[in-house]
Amino acid sequence: MQLTPKVKEILSWYESDNPGTKANLARILMEGKLGGTGRVVILPVDQGFEHGPARSFAPNPAAYDPRYLFELALEAGLNAYAAPLGMIEAGAATYAGAIPTILKVNSSNSLSTTKDQGVTGSVSDALRLGCSAIGFTIYPSSEYQFEMIEELREMAEEAKAAGLAVVVWSYPRGPMLDKTGETALDICAYAAHMAALIGAHIIKVKPPTSAISLEAAKSTYQKYPVEVNDPVARFRHVVQACFGGRRLVVFSGGEAKGMDDILAEVRSIHAAGGNGSIMGRNAFQRPKADALKLLNGIIDIYKAPVD
Amino acid sequence: MQLTPKVKEILSWYESDNPGTKANLARILMEGKLGGTGRVVILPVDQGFEHGPARSFAPNPAAYDPRYLFELALEAGLNAYAAPLGMIEAGAATYAGAIPTILKVNSSNSLSTTKDQGVTGSVSDALRLGCSAIGFTIYPSSEYQFEMIEELREMAEEAKAAGLAVVVWSYPRGPMLDKTGETALDICAYAAHMAALIGAHIIKVKPPTSAISLEAAKSTYQKYPVEVNDPVARFRHVVQACFGGRRLVVFSGGEAKGMDDILAEVRSIHAAGGNGSIMGRNAFQRPKADALKLLNGIIDIYKAPVD
Amino acid sequence: MQLTPKVKEILSWYESDNPGTKANLARILMEGKLGGTGRVVILPVDQGFEHGPARSFAPNPAAYDPRYLFELALEAGLNAYAAPLGMIEAGAATYAGAIPTILKVNSSNSLSTTKDQGVTGSVSDALRLGCSAIGFTIYPSSEYQFEMIEELREMAEEAKAAGLAVVVWSYPRGPMLDKTGETALDICAYAAHMAALIGAHIIKVKPPTSAISLEAAKSTYQKYPVEVNDPVARFRHVVQACFGGRRLVVFSGGEAKGMDDILAEVRSIHAAGGNGSIMGRNAFQRPKADALKLLNGIIDIYKAPVD
Amino acid sequence: MQLTPKVKEILSWYESDNPGTKANLARILMEGKLGGTGRVVILPVDQGFEHGPARSFAPNPAAYDPRYLFELALEAGLNAYAAPLGMIEAGAATYAGAIPTILKVNSSNSLSTTKDQGVTGSVSDALRLGCSAIGFTIYPSSEYQFEMIEELREMAEEAKAAGLAVVVWSYPRGPMLDKTGETALDICAYAAHMAALIGAHIIKVKPPTSAISLEAAKSTYQKYPVEVNDPVARFRHVVQACFGGRRLVVFSGGEAKGMDDILAEVRSIHAAGGNGSIMGRNAFQRPKADALKLLNGIIDIYKAPVD
Amino acid sequence: MQLTPKVKEILSWYESDNPGTKANLARILMEGKLGGTGRVVILPVDQGFEHGPARSFAPNPAAYDPRYLFELALEAGLNAYAAPLGMIEAGAATYAGAIPTILKVNSSNSLSTTKDQGVTGSVSDALRLGCSAIGFTIYPSSEYQFEMIEELREMAEEAKAAGLAVVVWSYPRGPMLDKTGETALDICAYAAHMAALIGAHIIKVKPPTSAISLEAAKSTYQKYPVEVNDPVARFRHVVQACFGGRRLVVFSGGEAKGMDDILAEVRSIHAAGGNGSIMGRNAFQRPKADALKLLNGIIDIYKAPVD
Repeated sequence: MQLTPKVKEILSWYESDNPGTKANLARILMEGKLGGTGRVVILPVDQGFEHGPARSFAPNPAAYDPRYLFELALEAGLNAYAAPLGMIEAGAATYAGAIPTILKVNSSNSLSTTKDQGVTGSVSDALRLGCSAIGFTIYPSSEYQFEMIEELREMAEEAKAAGLAVVVWSYPRGPMLDKTGETALDICAYAAHMAALIGAHIIKVKPPTSAISLEAAKSTYQKYPVEVNDPVARFRHVVQACFGGRRLVVFSGGEAKGMDDILAEVRSIHAAGGNGSIMGRNAFQRPKADALKLLNGIIDIYKAPVD
Repeated sequence: MQLTPKVKEILSWYESDNPGTKANLARILMEGKLGGTGRVVILPVDQGFEHGPARSFAPNPAAYDPRYLFELALEAGLNAYAAPLGMIEAGAATYAGAIPTILKVNSSNSLSTTKDQGVTGSVSDALRLGCSAIGFTIYPSSEYQFEMIEELREMAEEAKAAGLAVVVWSYPRGPMLDKTGETALDICAYAAHMAALIGAHIIKVKPPTSAISLEAAKSTYQKYPVEVNDPVARFRHVVQACFGGRRLVVFSGGEAKGMDDILAEVRSIHAAGGNGSIMGRNAFQRPKADALKLLNGIIDIYKAPVD
Repeated sequence: MQLTPKVKEILSWYESDNPGTKANLARILMEGKLGGTGRVVILPVDQGFEHGPARSFAPNPAAYDPRYLFELALEAGLNAYAAPLGMIEAGAATYAGAIPTILKVNSSNSLSTTKDQGVTGSVSDALRLGCSAIGFTIYPSSEYQFEMIEELREMAEEAKAAGLAVVVWSYPRGPMLDKTGETALDICAYAAHMAALIGAHIIKVKPPTSAISLEAAKSTYQKYPVEVNDPVARFRHVVQACFGGRRLVVFSGGEAKGMDDILAEVRSIHAAGGNGSIMGRNAFQRPKADALKLLNGIIDIYKAPVD
Repeated sequence: MQLTPKVKEILSWYESDNPGTKANLARILMEGKLGGTGRVVILPVDQGFEHGPARSFAPNPAAYDPRYLFELALEAGLNAYAAPLGMIEAGAATYAGAIPTILKVNSSNSLSTTKDQGVTGSVSDALRLGCSAIGFTIYPSSEYQFEMIEELREMAEEAKAAGLAVVVWSYPRGPMLDKTGETALDICAYAAHMAALIGAHIIKVKPPTSAISLEAAKSTYQKYPVEVNDPVARFRHVVQACFGGRRLVVFSGGEAKGMDDILAEVRSIHAAGGNGSIMGRNAFQRPKADALKLLNGIIDIYKAPVD
Repeated sequence: MQLTPKVKEILSWYESDNPGTKANLARILMEGKLGGTGRVVILPVDQGFEHGPARSFAPNPAAYDPRYLFELALEAGLNAYAAPLGMIEAGAATYAGAIPTILKVNSSNSLSTTKDQGVTGSVSDALRLGCSAIGFTIYPSSEYQFEMIEELREMAEEAKAAGLAVVVWSYPRGPMLDKTGETALDICAYAAHMAALIGAHIIKVKPPTSAISLEAAKSTYQKYPVEVNDPVARFRHVVQACFGGRRLVVFSGGEAKGMDDILAEVRSIHAAGGNGSIMGRNAFQRPKADALKLLNGIIDIYKAPVD
């Protein structure tokens, strides 16, 4: 497989990584309908942990079967499929080599009263299951943030040494942040930057809103303003926070919503130079035909060259 | 020993496991009167830890002697016997090869004021004692849930690498759950799904009631209703939460109760496609003849083909 | 040394242990005046940790010198001598091979405000010092109970693999137990049973009183009554809780008291089938001649066959 | 490269270190425009962690790109560049051998409500990235100070064994210190001395103010006065606290401020025998030309011999 | 070097230690002006950690330089010099083989609000620096006492295996003890006994006062009285608590005080059979000539045979 110039350029950003990790990044970047474009769409399915099985799969019961999710990602021509240990184990042999997988190695759940997570998979698991990357969520601002960061650090070091890529979900929450703060523009950029500093290869954050949350940051944003009411400008600010655009950054779709809203958001990410979307509930909770239609729509937007 | 098509099918669900683990799952599935049917009845005896010796064994003092429990499981033709370290050590040589054993590697007790558990056995112990599996209890929702989940993760990885199976008791309890919540249908399905996601081979939960407990889940169950007043529908919902029925799930018998109640429950589990029962106090607290009669009744139900 | 049938029978209870551990159990059981009877008297000296040096040794200052304690155990013809690291180190070479020693590997002290313990010795220490066993105290019901249980588990696994025996002091205390509860019959039997489940070879508990403490256990004891006012029945209940008498269980002498009271208690233990006594302050705080007289009296009772 | 007598003298202070560590110290001391003088200017860029990306880089957006920072340090002729993992990874191959790097291995952030830090890099990372040293921040007086000190101890031991140097940022903060206390003269000297005792090769503290904060220290400073109103005397006191000037000590520039203020401070450090400056925001937040002008001014002061 | 009979006798107390550890104890006991007498004077310099640099060294600024302290110990003919990592590193090569060193491996500081300590050195550090022993402080009665005891246990095991000696500073403090309690006679004897039980070779405690602090100990001291108003009797009681005088016990000098007071105290230690003094601030805060005069005076007292 000949890598495209765009993918070669992206790999050059990761100049300190070993060839194994670069190869796994290339596998993700070259896979599917967006293969070679430098854009990616990833299917993540850890909502069973986060929200429980019925809230995740009752709208489309076919998705209770882990094989459905592998097939959805494959059929839609996505770049990768991310899920916790049990769900990857349930299809890793059948779909070996068919689509890059990301082992989500920690998770929280709706029964928890703390803003912490449990580690539920390992780098060894990722290797024995043929995964291309591990995925890890941190909650910047949580009273457990340093424990999570240190767990991530250890696993990331082990993953990189083993030639895997590291995907970091950076979701701020904790005593300093109200609901608005969790997705405020400054916080979202800060969360993305922290993931980059910790050494993530692919950074996943939520779409930023127009709010500025951190008191100490307000004067900066007044002095050096971002067009907070323009979603493209907001996404561009987050991209900039990822080493001036030299780290892959993707945005989650969030709660299930209408196709038009999703595509509008994707257009903004695309225009801002974001690297793609990670689309869970909006994909697997729709009937398959609808999901494929939506994902195709998204892919078509990302395929277009930027003006 | 020729595996039955049913057992071969079940083993195919565990496609990522090594042959050692598959062999141990097969040993459990092919043992006893239900051997080959895909259904199992397991004798668990960790009540001495949970409730103390007199509350556990005074009703049938023969059971104070650990050999009695091995023999009860063997004589009844069960699939496996599960107990903590000391009880397995006390009979593992005498009954070596006679019946598959599951080393219960953590336990709580009635003298604890926290919803935590202590690890009391290891994978090395399971191997030296010839066990087929380790058993581990998690308390989803407890303030210690992530510690327990992470202990389980480590031990499960080690067990799988050593060719053992992993049985998870998933018993929700903690600050978010009142007594009703602990066995509510949504919580029970959630607990079963989490065990599947963590990578359990065999999942053990309590029979679900008709309650829906988690506020955030109520709208889902209204939109996608489960026939909560039909026990078969409830069990079926839990089976579905276990990867659409592609993980073995068994149900505990709970407090000692009348034979008719037990058999009625077993009939529902059978009809719902559940994989069996784990029957402790209802078995070993009865005089042996009564216990054998009850267990035979249960086995007869599970033996019958589903209509 | 030819083992007696009684000792052979006892070793048969420990069927899962390796020959090294069986040999060390045999060394303890075959030593001294009770050698071969299946009964044991052990001298424990960790009171310096628990109560401080003056409260322990001022009544008989010769005992400040660790050699005195080795000699007392040896001269009295006891089965073993148990003490913390420093005290064993201070005589292990001089008395090498003279009497089995038990390295007490954790201890609390009277200056602590928590119901926790510190680990002060290791299995490696026990091996280099030629000990036959490690001794470990757990406090069932303490808020630190699971930490202690898990420390014990790890050390017991290591000790068994190295051919050592494991002696567990099981002393309930914690927020659920008042002073009466700590030695109540149900609690004492529960504590002994837990030690057996954790895999102890020799269990040490305090003599049980007639109280029943745990609310949830009261109906059991009403339905299946124990003659709580008969000390023999009480000791027999504890023996039964130790796998129906298939684990060695010994009782502590507790606070210094009169010789008649001690001998009466020993007669009850003997009649109940208990395996012996662990006699600290009552032995080393008396002048040596008195101590030898008392210990001889105890040994004479244990030597007698049961009617 | 012939080491200067000054650098040889400095290396002699580190008489217990292995040749690998001495070589790395020499690399830092011999690099750039101050090479060989025994003075150093270091560019640290961990403000993205501490304050977020916009507050750090919006004033000079070129600095969002990690390559800019390597080039700034190189072009200005500094001695070393210090940054967290992700930023070093982003340029370590391109600038391999061009300028000594210090891997900042722990960091806090503005979203934290505790005075703790997370470890985000390792000695192995430093080695694979070709760094000359690790950098670690401790917060003396924080309720987490002993955890941080123990993490530092472990990493410093590993770093020294691997031939790396150890740079310690010693920034007092915690319940005993108000804002004034954090930079009080006695506290600053205490913080520097602690870093020396822990075994730091290069100590970084903030410029001390004239305040004396610790109640217990006031009588000492009355009896043995320091000219607290003379900045040179204050810096000299800190230098003395670093083993009488036998450890390298550098001072941070603190918040962005005017060029004149900075140069005045540098003149005092120089006169006091301090070993140099670590200059972050004052360097990278200025346009490059201004930054180079400032850094040249600083370097010129340090180059001058002391009267 | 021919060991004296006294030193041979002392080494015989440590009968379980390996030749390496005995050799290091012998090095300390045979060094300096008291070499061979069984008495020792040790210079400890960890006050920079405990009280900060100015409170420690401003009275005699020559002591800011770590080389001064090595020379003071050497010139005074002391038995050993004890200090934290950085201070030993700063002179270990220059003074290699000149005087036995004790690496103080944990320390607290005046900026801490908890009665805990940080580990700041390791057994590996002690070995690479040519030290004869490690030194460790425990705070019996602190809420962190078990953590400290367990850290000590681990390091002591490692040190003994590596042929090093173990010196324990046992300084009671915590919620049960007021200022008087910390140096009360019963508490001091208890602290010394605990250090002996944990396996210390050399025990360091503060001089005991006439107070009896622990409520539970008062009746013992009434029944078996110690002449609490006679300092010799008090020191003798502490010596007795150290295995009847079969462990080396030394006493700290405490706060700087007059020469006459110090010598009077030393005479009492000498008469009581204590093994010597550990003299920090009283030594290094005096001008060197005065310090040598004081230390010579102390040594002269210890040199005299006991009547």
